[in-house]
Amino acid sequence: MSKDKGITSRAEDAAKWYTDLVTKAGLAEHSAVRGCMVIKPYGWAIWEKMKEVLDARFKATGHVNASFPLFIPKSFLSKEAAHVEGFAKECAVVTHYRLKNDPNGGGVIVDPEAKLEEELIVRPTSETIIWNSYKNWINSHRDLPLLINQWANVVRWEMRTRLFLRTAEFHWQEGHTAHANKAEAVAEAELILTEYSNFMHNYLAIPVITGYKSESERFAGADETYTTEGLMQDGKALQMGTSHFLGQNFAKAFDVKYRDKNNQEEYVWATSWGVSTRMMGALIMAHSDDDGLILPPKLAPIQVVAIPLINKKTIDRKGELDDLVAKLKTELGTDIRFKYDDDDSKRSGFKFAEYELKGVPLRITLGFRDLDQGVVEIARRDTGEKKQYPVENLAQTIKHLLVEVQEGIYNKALNYRESHTTKVDSYEAFKEVLEGKGGFILAHWDGTAETEDAIKKETKATIRCIPLDAEEEEGVCVYSGKPSNKRVLFAKAY
Amino acid sequence: MSKDKGITSRAEDAAKWYTDLVTKAGLAEHSAVRGCMVIKPYGWAIWEKMKEVLDARFKATGHVNASFPLFIPKSFLSKEAAHVEGFAKECAVVTHYRLKNDPNGGGVIVDPEAKLEEELIVRPTSETIIWNSYKNWINSHRDLPLLINQWANVVRWEMRTRLFLRTAEFHWQEGHTAHANKAEAVAEAELILTEYSNFMHNYLAIPVITGYKSESERFAGADETYTTEGLMQDGKALQMGTSHFLGQNFAKAFDVKYRDKNNQEEYVWATSWGVSTRMMGALIMAHSDDDGLILPPKLAPIQVVAIPLINKKTIDRKGELDDLVAKLKTELGTDIRFKYDDDDSKRSGFKFAEYELKGVPLRITLGFRDLDQGVVEIARRDTGEKKQYPVENLAQTIKHLLVEVQEGIYNKALNYRESHTTKVDSYEAFKEVLEGKGGFILAHWDGTAETEDAIKKETKATIRCIPLDAEEEEGVCVYSGKPSNKRVLFAKAY
Repeated sequence: MSKDKGITSRAEDAAKWYTDLVTKAGLAEHSAVRGCMVIKPYGWAIWEKMKEVLDARFKATGHVNASFPLFIPKSFLSKEAAHVEGFAKECAVVTHYRLKNDPNGGGVIVDPEAKLEEELIVRPTSETIIWNSYKNWINSHRDLPLLINQWANVVRWEMRTRLFLRTAEFHWQEGHTAHANKAEAVAEAELILTEYSNFMHNYLAIPVITGYKSESERFAGADETYTTEGLMQDGKALQMGTSHFLGQNFAKAFDVKYRDKNNQEEYVWATSWGVSTRMMGALIMAHSDDDGLILPPKLAPIQVVAIPLINKKTIDRKGELDDLVAKLKTELGTDIRFKYDDDDSKRSGFKFAEYELKGVPLRITLGFRDLDQGVVEIARRDTGEKKQYPVENLAQTIKHLLVEVQEGIYNKALNYRESHTTKVDSYEAFKEVLEGKGGFILAHWDGTAETEDAIKKETKATIRCIPLDAEEEEGVCVYSGKPSNKRVLFAKAY
Repeated sequence: MSKDKGITSRAEDAAKWYTDLVTKAGLAEHSAVRGCMVIKPYGWAIWEKMKEVLDARFKATGHVNASFPLFIPKSFLSKEAAHVEGFAKECAVVTHYRLKNDPNGGGVIVDPEAKLEEELIVRPTSETIIWNSYKNWINSHRDLPLLINQWANVVRWEMRTRLFLRTAEFHWQEGHTAHANKAEAVAEAELILTEYSNFMHNYLAIPVITGYKSESERFAGADETYTTEGLMQDGKALQMGTSHFLGQNFAKAFDVKYRDKNNQEEYVWATSWGVSTRMMGALIMAHSDDDGLILPPKLAPIQVVAIPLINKKTIDRKGELDDLVAKLKTELGTDIRFKYDDDDSKRSGFKFAEYELKGVPLRITLGFRDLDQGVVEIARRDTGEKKQYPVENLAQTIKHLLVEVQEGIYNKALNYRESHTTKVDSYEAFKEVLEGKGGFILAHWDGTAETEDAIKKETKATIRCIPLDAEEEEGVCVYSGKPSNKRVLFAKAY
């Protein structure tokens, strides 16, 4: 355990390390409501940044935002057969709409007279309520494509929860689009997959693998599920976002048809896609260390912190630092999120540890010994490297370093992924890698749910995806020995 | 009824006019869930703009965002005595956490085995769950002030709902702050009142009256409620946002104390404040007319629309228009929300009506007869005025006109409010104005809840506020004849 910060080391207990980081860095904490978290200001600021970037991309690709009800009538869930199987079970059910004073003086009780005729489900996902609206919005080919997204909170009653990774309530965006034909809907699902993947590479600095889900891992109601799979530092995979081609399943369930140019009626084609606060968990687990968070500069709420070193002898020169910082701030402009921490009630050692814990990418130490020689010390959070840089052109240096840190974090994750992606050709080797170094395993699979299931039961590894870029390659399934023409990606996963 | 658009005239039926506008302009509609609305893309775009502006102001004044759970344990509501009286009654109650397949084949049913030990309430407002967290966050004076806001959806089970104005689920922001002393908390509540009022004046173009609520109209759990009251075109008032000084009520209910500089324990002081999607209703009712919305440019999703007039003779000159528009777009820059509608599947007359309905502030008509003389026609949505302007410097002209429209809309609303604010000195005059021209009435009141209540019962008018700028003035209560030293603001209200 890190003495200063009370963080359990990752080697000692990866799960505890994760929870310690999330809570001690002030990202989130459990609430009084089972399974629901409080996302604290520092955590929410990172999520807001993610939202801002993604939202701009959705809009740039022609999508608009809207807002659909929090509640779904219970009967709606049953309309799409596969969907109800996948989603209807663990969810929050609203049965009453009124409380009243307990006649026995015990505070408030549920008013038994205020029972709803039909129970309402707090949305676990919104396909049903949205397609019920689309029915009235879509009549003609001129109404298509309909490209709508919503930022929302959803609830799935999880029995075993973990901050950000699996919580009863979570925040996400869910896109729901309608198209005139299959090709356009597939193109949409793939476009979004690319947007997700670009975002994860360029902002989260996580080199995800993109691919198709096997049939048994598909979204309930989808004809095809595309996924982005990240690899965490403990060798486990994390599904980070999915994009679904829904075929005509929801259109048929909710009777949504359009008239084409020849005035013929046809069911519309659909997609849905989402990323959630789960990405916060990925961000933490992919990059951080025993000293705290390591945040990619593009998502860090504070990108650079400047800390003055002042003692009794130099206190009267404080004004020089203030001037230097004021000038630097102007040069950095509003694009760089800069903080000057000259709070004199805290020791600089305390501050160093605090910003390390919070994952601030760059720390500038302003000491007079350095400054009198025209330099300052800059520490990189990702590598721990400390170096002196000229005060001249400091703003340029900082901007340059931020780019380097972003790339450095990505490359480190990429190296890790590459050294933890193993091709295996036997079930023995499969199990050995899985129990040894872990990570992604590329292996031949016979394409059956039976084999997939058997491997899962015996090893806890699942098929994360059939990679989009999987090469055609003759081989035999590691489990059944039956023929296979490409390798799929296995891993233990969160 | 407006023939083209199917909008009931305001004179004929103001309530129907409002609903027609909201639905036909594509702002919102009722959903399949009783009392819950779907906010459609055009409506959500306006709300997003409101959020963006307010959020920037909250951050500029030192606030940070966070996210607290959607659910509140039932017992929490009883902890603050006044609060439970005001809020515990009409709300969505979650009693179960699982559905199961109906053994009789009737879809899904609530699993009676999955009953929660303690029911959860979908938050009607978040003071209780937030103060339960603050208990762990606040220890020392160094933790104060704590200035947190959240953007959230909340649910109050309203029996009679109206799109935006009163819905079961609605969207809002709720600020919850904690302070070391009373003066700071009061200053915070007043700061936010000023921010709200500035926003309503400068963006919504609604000249609100700010003041205190009478004791009986206060928020449940507040020591003082500040309000912003707008006047709608039908002479009724709309409460548009409130800011509450909560004293130490919630700190005491949740036992939240801090140690001051002398290491003495004291309860903290609190505020809470919120504005909601109700402002969308205000925006519509304050400015719009029988032809559709009239949106202030600062909040309009499209500020300027350019529509080409092309016929068979001029179709080969279309490229000239495209070039002109491309140049204009560059000159307008990304700050101006400009749309070029050259969709040739719709008649220009149809487009004119459509953008009128949607409240686009400026419409440019691009006709070759004008263009060949170096001019274009610009129509203002707010006044209906059409004028020709030189193509030269068109971007500057547009920017200038947008400012004029924003001011024009505000001034029109201000004139309306001034001509519909009446000082009365007798109960006869009070009732006469109320049943006649309506609007705000400034009258003396004896300060008792009994009088307030009697007036409300007899006339349906309520005290909207005791204006902050009310002058000291000797007088007698219009109802009781008892002495009074200032006039308060009465109106019928939404």
